[in-house]
Amino acid sequence: MTEFQTGLPSVRQIQGFIKEATLVQMRLLTNELLTGRVRWQDQHCICLLDDTDNPIVIWRHAIAYIKPESGGGGNRAVASVESQTVNIFQ
Amino acid sequence: MTEFQTGLPSVRQIQGFIKEATLVQMRLLTNELLTGRVRWQDQHCICLLDDTDNPIVIWRHAIAYIKPESGGGGNRAVASVESQTVNIFQ
Amino acid sequence: MTEFQTGLPSVRQIQGFIKEATLVQMRLLTNELLTGRVRWQDQHCICLLDDTDNPIVIWRHAIAYIKPESGGGGNRAVASVESQTVNIFQ
Amino acid sequence: MTEFQTGLPSVRQIQGFIKEATLVQMRLLTNELLTGRVRWQDQHCICLLDDTDNPIVIWRHAIAYIKPESGGGGNRAVASVESQTVNIFQ
Amino acid sequence: MTEFQTGLPSVRQIQGFIKEATLVQMRLLTNELLTGRVRWQDQHCICLLDDTDNPIVIWRHAIAYIKPESGGGGNRAVASVESQTVNIFQ
Amino acid sequence: MTEFQTGLPSVRQIQGFIKEATLVQMRLLTNELLTGRVRWQDQHCICLLDDTDNPIVIWRHAIAYIKPESGGGGNRAVASVESQTVNIFQ
Repeated sequence: MTEFQTGLPSVRQIQGFIKEATLVQMRLLTNELLTGRVRWQDQHCICLLDDTDNPIVIWRHAIAYIKPESGGGGNRAVASVESQTVNIFQ
Repeated sequence: MTEFQTGLPSVRQIQGFIKEATLVQMRLLTNELLTGRVRWQDQHCICLLDDTDNPIVIWRHAIAYIKPESGGGGNRAVASVESQTVNIFQ
Repeated sequence: MTEFQTGLPSVRQIQGFIKEATLVQMRLLTNELLTGRVRWQDQHCICLLDDTDNPIVIWRHAIAYIKPESGGGGNRAVASVESQTVNIFQ
Repeated sequence: MTEFQTGLPSVRQIQGFIKEATLVQMRLLTNELLTGRVRWQDQHCICLLDDTDNPIVIWRHAIAYIKPESGGGGNRAVASVESQTVNIFQ
Repeated sequence: MTEFQTGLPSVRQIQGFIKEATLVQMRLLTNELLTGRVRWQDQHCICLLDDTDNPIVIWRHAIAYIKPESGGGGNRAVASVESQTVNIFQ
Repeated sequence: MTEFQTGLPSVRQIQGFIKEATLVQMRLLTNELLTGRVRWQDQHCICLLDDTDNPIVIWRHAIAYIKPESGGGGNRAVASVESQTVNIFQ
């Protein structure tokens, strides 16, 4: 059973986007660019609410990258993630 | 053996679409957009019935995302999923 | 070792196509559409016999979806699968 | 460690192509079509010798399908595989 | 649980890029070319800061390759990795 | 933890390219063709030095195939691999 490692920086980063309702952009491997707010995540999928609050359940294997839409807004969520990440390699 | 984790939000979301016979759209990694009602799911595939009730057995690895076709209709199924999801991170 | 879970609805569905020699269409992630009858399956591949009975060994990871070619013909095989599938979530 | 299941029909089919030096065609997910004779296989790759006997080491994850080039030639190798395959589901 | 093998040459190479704040180019499977500095990495994702210091969380499965942007700058980080790599096969 | 099976023919083939500094071509799933000499390999990546000796760290999942550039040069490395491969199926 694939366990959901909630302590990973990448999982915590997305959790931060959920908590802050950050407007994000998600580039898919089909090259489509989705914009919305992350509603929930699990080990296989991420649920995005689009601009009309409709849910899109996206498979992680189809995602190339995710980033704060304006680039600025999400930084607080990003900062909190980075503090733990460096330790893994000490 | 890959176990089918029926408790996951993403699996329950699709189970909700099955129970409510929600009309859904499924974007594939080939960019094809399929429309239909989910008939069944297992850990490898999702079966969609198209508008003439013919079965299409789709591999999960080929799916980019799934969403209620009208965006509205499926929301009840969506709401019930979201209530559990938040707890995972408390 | 990846075990071949012969009890899964998706595996049984394909086994139904084999038993009924259903004419199927298989969409690949390359967008190619193959037509033929399923000869055998294992956990990595599905063997399709084309219209001149020549074998094509297709990797599951390359398949987007499979469906009965005429949509009609394969329904008996489909019906038998669906009866078990619903139980998983009771 | 991913074990190489040499008993699988798909692995035995390719082993048959090796033993019979069958001229095969291999469609890749890039849509490229390679023609040659299979030299060896392991759980990650298949080595094909092209028409000038030069080795091409192809990752299995990049292969869509493999088939005897003329369709005819490889059938003996195919036949021997099919006899075992059916039992798995009895 | 997929363990993060921090001792691997590929992981250490990226850790070297982080420590040296190397300007890198990352080619994605969508063919997009991202340029920036690696902020952190875990077993699923790599976080790149773009030229306006905005974070892009990129899934490893979407990356084709990564290389020092100028080719030169990152070489010290590269050299330290190569010394351990050869031993694996002695 | 994915173990690096250094005894596999495909891994030994690449190790042969490293030892002989064979000029190789690597076709990626993006269709890009990289040319260079393999510097090191691990279970996730292969490092290629391009014609200006700059390192490109390429993910295995993005590689379609690898072959000696001139076809000729690498054959000694290829020959030594093939001798063990056949035994697996005896």
